[in-house]
Amino acid sequence: MLVVMKNDATEEQVQAVIQEIEKLGYRGIPMPGAQRTAVCIIGNRGPVEDAQLLAMDGVKETITVTKPYKLVSRETQPEPTVISIGDITIGAGEPVIMAGPCAVESEEQALTIASVVKEHGARVYRGGAFKPRTSPYSFQGLGERGLKILAKVRQETGLLIVTEATDHANLEIVEKYADIIQIGARNMQNYSLLRLAGQVSKPILLKRGFAATIDELLMAAEYIMSEGNTRIILCERGIRTFADNTRNTLDLSAILSIKEASHLPIIVDPSHAAGRREYVIPLSKGAIAVGADGLLVEVHHDPPHALSDGMQSLYPQQFGELMKEVDRLKNQLKD
Amino acid sequence: MLVVMKNDATEEQVQAVIQEIEKLGYRGIPMPGAQRTAVCIIGNRGPVEDAQLLAMDGVKETITVTKPYKLVSRETQPEPTVISIGDITIGAGEPVIMAGPCAVESEEQALTIASVVKEHGARVYRGGAFKPRTSPYSFQGLGERGLKILAKVRQETGLLIVTEATDHANLEIVEKYADIIQIGARNMQNYSLLRLAGQVSKPILLKRGFAATIDELLMAAEYIMSEGNTRIILCERGIRTFADNTRNTLDLSAILSIKEASHLPIIVDPSHAAGRREYVIPLSKGAIAVGADGLLVEVHHDPPHALSDGMQSLYPQQFGELMKEVDRLKNQLKD
Amino acid sequence: MLVVMKNDATEEQVQAVIQEIEKLGYRGIPMPGAQRTAVCIIGNRGPVEDAQLLAMDGVKETITVTKPYKLVSRETQPEPTVISIGDITIGAGEPVIMAGPCAVESEEQALTIASVVKEHGARVYRGGAFKPRTSPYSFQGLGERGLKILAKVRQETGLLIVTEATDHANLEIVEKYADIIQIGARNMQNYSLLRLAGQVSKPILLKRGFAATIDELLMAAEYIMSEGNTRIILCERGIRTFADNTRNTLDLSAILSIKEASHLPIIVDPSHAAGRREYVIPLSKGAIAVGADGLLVEVHHDPPHALSDGMQSLYPQQFGELMKEVDRLKNQLKD
Amino acid sequence: MLVVMKNDATEEQVQAVIQEIEKLGYRGIPMPGAQRTAVCIIGNRGPVEDAQLLAMDGVKETITVTKPYKLVSRETQPEPTVISIGDITIGAGEPVIMAGPCAVESEEQALTIASVVKEHGARVYRGGAFKPRTSPYSFQGLGERGLKILAKVRQETGLLIVTEATDHANLEIVEKYADIIQIGARNMQNYSLLRLAGQVSKPILLKRGFAATIDELLMAAEYIMSEGNTRIILCERGIRTFADNTRNTLDLSAILSIKEASHLPIIVDPSHAAGRREYVIPLSKGAIAVGADGLLVEVHHDPPHALSDGMQSLYPQQFGELMKEVDRLKNQLKD
Repeated sequence: MLVVMKNDATEEQVQAVIQEIEKLGYRGIPMPGAQRTAVCIIGNRGPVEDAQLLAMDGVKETITVTKPYKLVSRETQPEPTVISIGDITIGAGEPVIMAGPCAVESEEQALTIASVVKEHGARVYRGGAFKPRTSPYSFQGLGERGLKILAKVRQETGLLIVTEATDHANLEIVEKYADIIQIGARNMQNYSLLRLAGQVSKPILLKRGFAATIDELLMAAEYIMSEGNTRIILCERGIRTFADNTRNTLDLSAILSIKEASHLPIIVDPSHAAGRREYVIPLSKGAIAVGADGLLVEVHHDPPHALSDGMQSLYPQQFGELMKEVDRLKNQLKD
Repeated sequence: MLVVMKNDATEEQVQAVIQEIEKLGYRGIPMPGAQRTAVCIIGNRGPVEDAQLLAMDGVKETITVTKPYKLVSRETQPEPTVISIGDITIGAGEPVIMAGPCAVESEEQALTIASVVKEHGARVYRGGAFKPRTSPYSFQGLGERGLKILAKVRQETGLLIVTEATDHANLEIVEKYADIIQIGARNMQNYSLLRLAGQVSKPILLKRGFAATIDELLMAAEYIMSEGNTRIILCERGIRTFADNTRNTLDLSAILSIKEASHLPIIVDPSHAAGRREYVIPLSKGAIAVGADGLLVEVHHDPPHALSDGMQSLYPQQFGELMKEVDRLKNQLKD
Repeated sequence: MLVVMKNDATEEQVQAVIQEIEKLGYRGIPMPGAQRTAVCIIGNRGPVEDAQLLAMDGVKETITVTKPYKLVSRETQPEPTVISIGDITIGAGEPVIMAGPCAVESEEQALTIASVVKEHGARVYRGGAFKPRTSPYSFQGLGERGLKILAKVRQETGLLIVTEATDHANLEIVEKYADIIQIGARNMQNYSLLRLAGQVSKPILLKRGFAATIDELLMAAEYIMSEGNTRIILCERGIRTFADNTRNTLDLSAILSIKEASHLPIIVDPSHAAGRREYVIPLSKGAIAVGADGLLVEVHHDPPHALSDGMQSLYPQQFGELMKEVDRLKNQLKD
Repeated sequence: MLVVMKNDATEEQVQAVIQEIEKLGYRGIPMPGAQRTAVCIIGNRGPVEDAQLLAMDGVKETITVTKPYKLVSRETQPEPTVISIGDITIGAGEPVIMAGPCAVESEEQALTIASVVKEHGARVYRGGAFKPRTSPYSFQGLGERGLKILAKVRQETGLLIVTEATDHANLEIVEKYADIIQIGARNMQNYSLLRLAGQVSKPILLKRGFAATIDELLMAAEYIMSEGNTRIILCERGIRTFADNTRNTLDLSAILSIKEASHLPIIVDPSHAAGRREYVIPLSKGAIAVGADGLLVEVHHDPPHALSDGMQSLYPQQFGELMKEVDRLKNQLKD
């Protein structure tokens, strides 16, 4: 349930409502908005008796939230969430491009690719230091050494850094180095990790599990937000279907369903969905045209020798072409 | 196998090659192209002994076709097929918009909607006279009376007509009235119907079955083309997956896989994929941005009272908005 | 809606109800049962006003059918349908084994395999004369010559014959030769063919489309039954999923869902689901244990040289083993 | 690669081979078998030069392992793994029944259900203390208090205990109380948790992710085994498909594919797959008939008031019926 405050409600009135909610045995989370402040009640299993709340000073009305998720719901917060990190904003209309290699392999490799993606206009650098790999015998990433390289990339290029955390231990380390912390598709229902991600100081990039429904993705985001971290970026990266022409089937309608149900921004990863670099540019254009808030793209200076997933990494020149296409498209869409 | 003729090969030399192929017990289909003529050998189950063919006058080389489909393959014909119908062309770069109601309900309804879609710039009118319905008790279409109404729409508006045939009997009738004959998703593997569609004089719009792979769709097109009808337009309309946020999951990467494997044009039906009108405009933009050769869209002057699928039909005003968006996008993409 | 007659209602009273229903603009189909006769109203799109019907002589009550299918529904007929063909019954508790090659290749091949399957106790012989094939260049079956061979198999062995029809033309021919007419998975939503199947004199074996829900399968059966043919055997043959360890994923819970929703018998085809002969025996045991009314199994005397699908055909000895396992299992289940 | 030792190879020779492998920069894991001892080489990314190894005393041959998984592969260990826990064995032919509530709710509830499942012959008690729940606001289990109740169940009934761990912290606690530690479907690719599960002293019950292929499940098991824990029981619990008649589609062919590719035992959870108690008995029979090594079944003394998933829990009487059916079936299958 949502307790909507009057426009002129004071901070004291909001706090009084939160205390009243706690007396009822639940938690009250303030949701400040451009138009109004509301207090979202969580922790209740059934309907909440609202007579007492409605009688309080500053309370305008109560609204029942019809979805299983609450804090991430559009019902709770009608305006889209805009996330500011450094000098960029995500969810404000301008698509944000995050690009870089699948894995950090060496300082030289990381810096080489960073200069490529920066030159072409990307603002965020992606690169894995802790890699969740299907085989225990595959390269698992450079670990903290990789994070230090990423920190150097930021220092030398000014690019913001997004990199994945896969468990409690490395989430705490990643928090120190990254600007955005990625929770990967395989961990989308690792609720223990999600809770911890809700307690860190950095924004979270949460990827849709490859067999997750939109509701399940939003419930995963709710886990994070219920712990206090409201800066969450969702990411569509393809779903598992019978279709065998791409590694996964990119579900661009997910952008629409998420924007309808939630106020959170949503970006698209065409590289992992397609699994083939030839498809990355047109699918990126499709994602922007449908309304994605950004892209997460794999780029490598030497794809055939990339430590993993070389088949899907763009060559530098292709990334340049991608950025030009995105620019043209977004200007067109803005008009 | 493909027998590629020299640039200056004569028609007689081509005919001689075809006769030689027939002597070997196969069929030879001439594939004239901008750059070269080739003769495609079909009917063989294994490799063909090509020594004799290579020795013939006018023969440049032979190429083994690696895909199970041959006539529809890019290997056989590298240039894209452009289909001219009346004064429009499909596959030539300019996306073609086909729009209209799910079903023809009455002359008045059909003409009302036709004037809407024409006013906003559509060139092809869609409307079902023979409807394949999940329930035997649902409205099955007006039949030939519906076709006559469609003929009147063409006469009064100049719009071309696309409408579905569902069996041998009505395919023969539809051929008389329609400019493009649709074979629906449920009949994509109705091989008997596909063969007959290969023998008619009108272009075929072949929709992807909702659980068909790209290879299966192209094999279905191969059935049609092996009977002589080379004018085939493919259509992506969503696939069946676990995802429950849309009726089917629109697979825009299918556009890329089809264009890679085949020379046939491919359009997109966002209405049936999404099942909700709110999604049709953004998904249409996505389809055009990815590279679709056209759109097939449901429009109704009074969606809540449409005889079927009213939930997904656009209102006239929405269709106008769609056309504006498509125009802007295609101008941008052309630059 | 279902008009349930009193136990002592006369045939005249039933006819009067049917005539009354027709006056209302619908059709009335009598559904005789062990306990009661009911008249099922079809053709209505919404609720039927039942006051007049309830007032008629012999009428006990009316029941609203909650499912989109009516005639095939358990609500309409609570007792399971038992289909008698020659001296066998399907749906009466004893699983019926149908076995034979994918395709009839020659008289010698057909008779060789027939003697194998008969020797081991099968009662129905399967073999395709009209084969729906993904490629137009693949072997499409021997056609009517194949049917004549099947007729000879019946004559020489006493086995009943089940074989597939794929269109109107061959359905009429198949009807002359077969004891059971198969409608294949690819034609499960070929409504024109289903309607014709509802008008023939032979029982129909209707295979589940590889991406069809249970409701869609039952709606397809409803098409057949609404035309008058009540002898329908359903067949689960695997569904298309992401899983790549078998050709299709055998959905044995379909047996339960079908028996819950419908009175029709349901058999299982483990050969097409698995695509590998090693899996056929254990999956057959699973199917019988779950409650299937029979099996449809591919057997060939020389699988490596079978004209199609040799990989999944059982060797004669394996079929013998299968029959022994089924016998033990069904005795155990009967106790 | 597998280094197969001669039948009379000494322990010293095996150790020498392991040391030689370590010199090459890899790890060597001894795989003792009934027929032979082999040393599995892990950690290599490409082919291993085997000349030196073949020249060593006691070495019979080397075998290349063709699958991405090694330690769990049948190629590495041809005999099935039999896991002994207390006085039961899993994988030895006799199916093991694990039964109990979804969640431990109270001591009284747990003991009541325990006496039911024990009375009917189950040997292992299941019950969740740490529940991975889709919503952060749902009941998350009693935690360590629940584990203490489970310990009491074991003490009072002699039943072995299987219960789930969802992260590093609770895995260490669960290890103290449980006889078998469950890793749930949502954590099947939580590699960090899998590694830790490889280091504990208790057997692991690893459930198949609802969108995991067989290869992915075996790779997850490989993570566990590569850390030293060889006692792994796999569990099929239904996969996510388009089919809507059950919560998930139970893939009984997974039993066959796993037994073909791996030596590990595999049990089946029909309750979570079906989501409906009416289907649990027949699907259990199907699972046993196909060859499952056991069942994991939800039972509750009062399903309508169960704290979660009451719809799928068996009533005590139904569980009695299930056990009778399983007994009859396994006697029949043993003959």
